[in-house]
Amino acid sequence: MPHAPSPGTLFIVATPIGNLEDITLRAIRVLREVSLIAAEDTRRTSRLLNHFAITTRAISMHEHNEHDRALPLVERLLAGESIALVTDAGTPLVSDPGHLLTRAAAARGIRVEPIPGASAVLTALTGAAMPWAKFAFLGFTPTKQNARRIFYKEADALGLPFVVYEAPHRLRASLDDAAATLSERPLVVARELTKIHEEFVRTTTTAAPDVFRSREVIGEFTLVFGGAEPREDTAREPLSDETIWAELGRLAEEGRSRREAIAELAKREGRTSKDIYAAAERGKTAGEP
Amino acid sequence: MPHAPSPGTLFIVATPIGNLEDITLRAIRVLREVSLIAAEDTRRTSRLLNHFAITTRAISMHEHNEHDRALPLVERLLAGESIALVTDAGTPLVSDPGHLLTRAAAARGIRVEPIPGASAVLTALTGAAMPWAKFAFLGFTPTKQNARRIFYKEADALGLPFVVYEAPHRLRASLDDAAATLSERPLVVARELTKIHEEFVRTTTTAAPDVFRSREVIGEFTLVFGGAEPREDTAREPLSDETIWAELGRLAEEGRSRREAIAELAKREGRTSKDIYAAAERGKTAGEP
Repeated sequence: MPHAPSPGTLFIVATPIGNLEDITLRAIRVLREVSLIAAEDTRRTSRLLNHFAITTRAISMHEHNEHDRALPLVERLLAGESIALVTDAGTPLVSDPGHLLTRAAAARGIRVEPIPGASAVLTALTGAAMPWAKFAFLGFTPTKQNARRIFYKEADALGLPFVVYEAPHRLRASLDDAAATLSERPLVVARELTKIHEEFVRTTTTAAPDVFRSREVIGEFTLVFGGAEPREDTAREPLSDETIWAELGRLAEEGRSRREAIAELAKREGRTSKDIYAAAERGKTAGEP
Repeated sequence: MPHAPSPGTLFIVATPIGNLEDITLRAIRVLREVSLIAAEDTRRTSRLLNHFAITTRAISMHEHNEHDRALPLVERLLAGESIALVTDAGTPLVSDPGHLLTRAAAARGIRVEPIPGASAVLTALTGAAMPWAKFAFLGFTPTKQNARRIFYKEADALGLPFVVYEAPHRLRASLDDAAATLSERPLVVARELTKIHEEFVRTTTTAAPDVFRSREVIGEFTLVFGGAEPREDTAREPLSDETIWAELGRLAEEGRSRREAIAELAKREGRTSKDIYAAAERGKTAGEP
């Protein structure tokens, strides 16, 4: 009796979000080596494949045919073929199709292997240059005003910085709704990420509607809403003694008295002034030869 | 009078999280072209640089010296040098240092340009093969049991799937605390992402402590807690008529009567049975030649 072949691997492959150089060496190799690429839009993907002289066949799998495509693809994986899943841009499954195929494959014991790469979420967050340690990603905002306002209210209640995607023709309405429903937060509007006209507009929920009243609104937008607290980034781990000592020095340079600096740091860190004072003394000693 | 030089760019460069092939073409080029690399750990980064024959000088910038390093680096950027910020693994600023430098640079008008690439957050989420459309990233869990239980309680209340990082020597305690405080959720424990021993253990909050009682716990862990609702992924946009027609067919294949299938879909989609019935009829017609 012939042995059943060992099943193939389903690779979830991140592709560029605008700049064709934003693809990893492994992604290029895997796209070359698999027997089939399941692509959200085969025309868009073929531009990528042509650029890198990859000749693997691509078939379309998008939200409207995923139910029909998933099971035959799982059968091919079980029969030993390896398949790569890609979407139009960025990391598949992030506001993109592929969930059904991925789960169906994993449920049949097929190896699902992510090939990491570009994604607008983290690109926007790292370019935002605002403090964050935690965040929520909430996908596209709803298209209707009522639903969008409820969405922003719920987002506000999370108490986290959060990232959303927004279509250009809805940007102004969305910024109006954000201003009307959110508590005051820093807001970075990222446009055309990784492309030539990449731009980070650093503003606030309150100021944003005016800023964009007079701007041309074209391209794709990713919105990063900062935390309502002033210093999210210090919440993760208590500062080391050395850092507290250094930070007191910095605050002194900015003109605070020692007492003010200690009080400010204590408040920011959720510790007592006495505790901060003791830590600074230890940090000072540790920094000395 | 001489002109001031045009300032350089601060590149935030994502590097591999385990597999050296997980670096983009642009990251390699930028690391080659900048005049200086600010690295969390120069020894770890020099392994990467050697592998790709990159000879750019790297200096250390980590959480304990970022306060001292940031301003001189900003001065060099203002003087026209371009600098790349990298951390030990993955996308800088994600539970990593660099926030202070990035904000200081942006505040002085220096261009901050993210070079996207690997990150454990999205790698774990895409390999998890569980339904999600939104998520929260919460960084490392607190190290003390009390704080960790409060952390998990607050995470639970977000009502979103969420991702955390966990140290190997705390994994079992953390899973115990999650089981004790979280509502029942699917849980994927990802280990050694992108490395040879990459593994996704698909379990639940309740079952996980037992699963890991008998397993060796080595490597780095990323935990993906699924949503408390069964079908997060259908929440984003209403299903198309064609998809509803196809989905009813699938449910019929699984043995549901037409009435049961319509009722199930109506509940899942938050629509009335009458609405689902009408959509299916339209979807059926649209699918016919």
